[in-house]
Amino acid sequence: MIWVNGEHENTIIIADRGLQYGDGVFETIAVMDGNPLLLGQHLDRLQSGCQALAISCPDRALLISEIASCCRHAAQHLNSSNAVIKVIVTRGQGGRGYRPPVQATPTRIVSLHPWPTTPKNYTVEGIAMRFCQTRLGINPSLAGIKHLNRLEQVLARAEWDDPDIQEGVMLDTNGQVIEGTMSNLFYVKANSLYTACLKQAGIAGIVRQQLINLAHIQGHSFTEQPVTQEMLLAADEIFVSNSIIGIWPVRQIGQHHFAIGPITRQLQAGLMQVMRGNRCAN
Amino acid sequence: MIWVNGEHENTIIIADRGLQYGDGVFETIAVMDGNPLLLGQHLDRLQSGCQALAISCPDRALLISEIASCCRHAAQHLNSSNAVIKVIVTRGQGGRGYRPPVQATPTRIVSLHPWPTTPKNYTVEGIAMRFCQTRLGINPSLAGIKHLNRLEQVLARAEWDDPDIQEGVMLDTNGQVIEGTMSNLFYVKANSLYTACLKQAGIAGIVRQQLINLAHIQGHSFTEQPVTQEMLLAADEIFVSNSIIGIWPVRQIGQHHFAIGPITRQLQAGLMQVMRGNRCAN
Repeated sequence: MIWVNGEHENTIIIADRGLQYGDGVFETIAVMDGNPLLLGQHLDRLQSGCQALAISCPDRALLISEIASCCRHAAQHLNSSNAVIKVIVTRGQGGRGYRPPVQATPTRIVSLHPWPTTPKNYTVEGIAMRFCQTRLGINPSLAGIKHLNRLEQVLARAEWDDPDIQEGVMLDTNGQVIEGTMSNLFYVKANSLYTACLKQAGIAGIVRQQLINLAHIQGHSFTEQPVTQEMLLAADEIFVSNSIIGIWPVRQIGQHHFAIGPITRQLQAGLMQVMRGNRCAN
Repeated sequence: MIWVNGEHENTIIIADRGLQYGDGVFETIAVMDGNPLLLGQHLDRLQSGCQALAISCPDRALLISEIASCCRHAAQHLNSSNAVIKVIVTRGQGGRGYRPPVQATPTRIVSLHPWPTTPKNYTVEGIAMRFCQTRLGINPSLAGIKHLNRLEQVLARAEWDDPDIQEGVMLDTNGQVIEGTMSNLFYVKANSLYTACLKQAGIAGIVRQQLINLAHIQGHSFTEQPVTQEMLLAADEIFVSNSIIGIWPVRQIGQHHFAIGPITRQLQAGLMQVMRGNRCAN
């Protein structure tokens, strides 16, 4: 089910700069029991991403209304009350050439997808990861933004097809640990929580920010800092996060094994409460 | 006029990974007097770009036939026998997630565009450039490839709207000079020709390679090397190149002025001959 600028459509004009240059941003929103989770935060990030790219962000009330329609549709037509909504905003149509048109009309795409199924309960049992060969390019102008230029993630995720490995660690071109291919990465060392700075590369996840807030509320020491492979592999606990998976503990990276520890479990419990409390009012 | 997988279409399925992730490559081909210039070279680069991204490249004969149809259409329906053909190949449709589908069917898009008009004869008179603030991220896995992740170029080209400036110099995040926003960049110093290495960032242009070959034929010393802003600004001659503009001499970057010199003119003359000799046989 897809809405393009409010109309039921499953296609987009080829001249759209989203296709031509990846000139746009997106959000992936979890729908649980018919409610879009952390909707305000997703819309805030969409707006700040649009602002960074000088794309005129669609009206917030309009987006909320279309996402609410999407949720109602999910409840009526999908076999589950859980689903995923993807929102894409592109700069719209505009010529053959990189220069953005002076007055572009952005394209907004709201699409509904079934909740992903996983063969195991990774939330409880944890996952195995590997180090990816594909690196994240360093670029402060684009770092943090959930934009449509995602070839690095595509190439990184294409590196393995072993079903026993669920996620890959991505380093930047300087060899610093940044994130997973589809998730942010945290670790615990001596009861303190750490994650990589995303000023140079990476995507600033909505759940990542929730976890930073939660760490404060739960009284954990938290530091955002440059992370090396050695620091990561010397961790007591490791986990990955995104809006759909929440938190997956990491029990293995390559040949290195990790315990699923108490801070991971506390943050999982806290995140569950945040998710339940932050549903859309619609 | 647009062909999608051989059918007249002006839309693409939203699930196409070209839109979702910029998961594809493209070529921009000059058509002069009804003939696509340097077609073999464009198709070779399309193929090597597809190979680098593990996209199954469409059949070469099929592409040649569609491009030839496009040229015939241009001759019949455009007011000029000169035109631009853009070819896009994406990985095709495939799920919500970075992981490429095991068996994806690539999407090929061949579109026809009018020859761009410029207010002045930049080929003769030269152009003015500026240094862009937006940097090119360093990533050896993607460097050289003409892929669909082009936000850096979009942001760089959005930096100015002064009609007296025709192109911008882009540096990588280490401050090295790489190329223009839509062109490769060469300079001449003490009768030797130089251009930046593109192992870390940038797009390996078709005309760039033709000029490297021509420099050899014309007996100019040529070196591909890391280029600093200081080296560029100390040049005797500077020019930019791409498949549509050919060579535009650079007479100014910011407040620095440059003569349009003899090597630039020799390469322009040589390139004109190469273009005339390398037309498609169709």
